Amino acid sequence: MLSEQQVIQKLTQACPSHIGDDAAVLNSTPSIVISKDILNEDVHFRLRYFTPDALAHKALHINLSDIAAMGATPKYVLLGLGIPKHFEDKVEAFLNAFTEACHKANVILIGGDTTQAKALTLSVTAIGETDPKQIKHRHTAKAGDMLCVTGNLGLAYQGLQALEQNTPANKEAIEACLTPTARIKEGIWLGGQASVHAMMDISDGLYLDVKKLCEASSLGAKIDVDNFDDITAALTGGEDYELLFTVDKQHVQALKQAFDAQFTCKMNCIGEIQKDENICFLLDGKPFVPKIKPFLHFGELPF
Amino acid sequence: MLSEQQVIQKLTQACPSHIGDDAAVLNSTPSIVISKDILNEDVHFRLRYFTPDALAHKALHINLSDIAAMGATPKYVLLGLGIPKHFEDKVEAFLNAFTEACHKANVILIGGDTTQAKALTLSVTAIGETDPKQIKHRHTAKAGDMLCVTGNLGLAYQGLQALEQNTPANKEAIEACLTPTARIKEGIWLGGQASVHAMMDISDGLYLDVKKLCEASSLGAKIDVDNFDDITAALTGGEDYELLFTVDKQHVQALKQAFDAQFTCKMNCIGEIQKDENICFLLDGKPFVPKIKPFLHFGELPF
Repeated sequence: MLSEQQVIQKLTQACPSHIGDDAAVLNSTPSIVISKDILNEDVHFRLRYFTPDALAHKALHINLSDIAAMGATPKYVLLGLGIPKHFEDKVEAFLNAFTEACHKANVILIGGDTTQAKALTLSVTAIGETDPKQIKHRHTAKAGDMLCVTGNLGLAYQGLQALEQNTPANKEAIEACLTPTARIKEGIWLGGQASVHAMMDISDGLYLDVKKLCEASSLGAKIDVDNFDDITAALTGGEDYELLFTVDKQHVQALKQAFDAQFTCKMNCIGEIQKDENICFLLDGKPFVPKIKPFLHFGELPF
Repeated sequence: MLSEQQVIQKLTQACPSHIGDDAAVLNSTPSIVISKDILNEDVHFRLRYFTPDALAHKALHINLSDIAAMGATPKYVLLGLGIPKHFEDKVEAFLNAFTEACHKANVILIGGDTTQAKALTLSVTAIGETDPKQIKHRHTAKAGDMLCVTGNLGLAYQGLQALEQNTPANKEAIEACLTPTARIKEGIWLGGQASVHAMMDISDGLYLDVKKLCEASSLGAKIDVDNFDDITAALTGGEDYELLFTVDKQHVQALKQAFDAQFTCKMNCIGEIQKDENICFLLDGKPFVPKIKPFLHFGELPF
């Protein structure tokens, strides 16, 4: 029996290089960038607290996030919909919300498929376009690069915990969980910056995603956890859909200034890429060992 | 509550023109053609008679069929996999078979996603490339065109009935149901023929698919049912994955000669496109009213 990681590993082995990126790149003019994500009821979301509107927004944006994380402009989506009986009366509201969300994000719904299912299944394929020179990968980080992120990590996880446990949480955390908005403009802009060496989005929690970026680049990283209010949520919370990128140290200050001047979310430098292929953590400049319990979707382990 | 047809209609309304085709076309050089199909356990297939090998072959080929039906060359696929507990020990065999099937069909697996699910879900996105001049649509049939198909219609349905009811059937019918092979070379070749005006693949049975082609073209058709051994299976059986295309009458004989000379499956002229926006049938040259019970996947109605 294969674990989910082994399934992905097997898929990766079967694929040409760079499948590890958020999206695959086709050789065409312009370059086409394409990504696919499945969201399953009671694995990735619960209908108890997701309205059709929120779900449509999230299903779209987690896919657009993959495209933006490559430095590309999202252009088209295809929607695959597996509909269970208990969602039949909400399909219309969902479709209205999905097309409205596409319109707002300036992407065109170009096709899809629909079928019956036992649980609600949302399978979105997102397609972006870009100049090939602007594409950012995971495997191109350099030793000495600063490790940077957009926005506040861990918020979505705090929102999820509150929703799961019916406890109060601030509005921002709930929104981060239910209706994350892909960092599209930010991703496209960062894609155009030569000083940005590597980029991906943060979907499985900072720790796991930094690990992926480092492994793809055959490098390591040290992370300053002073940057986080809730260290565990930030490192292992998951579903942030913020951007993780590495920047040439010489240009990082200028880049941050330019970034913060034009975007509402902030760019934060949270660590450094290093030759030593480990991920280590610093608190007040001293080595720190956080509790790492990687984010898993409901009952995702054992697979 | 929306029926499946209404869901598709709503999706269609939200999409730009020609979403009705088997695949969507992106403006790039070369033209990118992209299609998405979901296969769900106990809706589209049963694990009782599908081995992982057969399922991998079918999941791939029904998607390649959409690309070939546009006259395009399949190049890439993405695989989304929703895995239930009862399929865990077969995932490895399935992935091996899927990558092998990709290799044989000369397409590259460029990415995908995997998740837990209650029932096995196979969501494939197929991507093809072609010269924009070679793309064939559904809406471009012309009155007076001959209506043509590849291969033997109804075979897959006969195979399905035998498998469902545990009754004997010939090997060819079982294979047509379990391991249909997309008419890739044939579709690419037909795409290059100027005398072919419209094309699509036959997945829902000849009757429904001719209806779709005619509605897209604002035309009708008459179909000679003398061409079929089992009229009901041919008209309404579904899952043939043969090609349906319309050909300029003046060139149809030359086209058939050239087709039959180079491909193992035969091209058959089964009717004619007409101005009158009806689908009618002829048996021995006389009007005939067949029993039309459109093909539906298991329990697909009510949706």
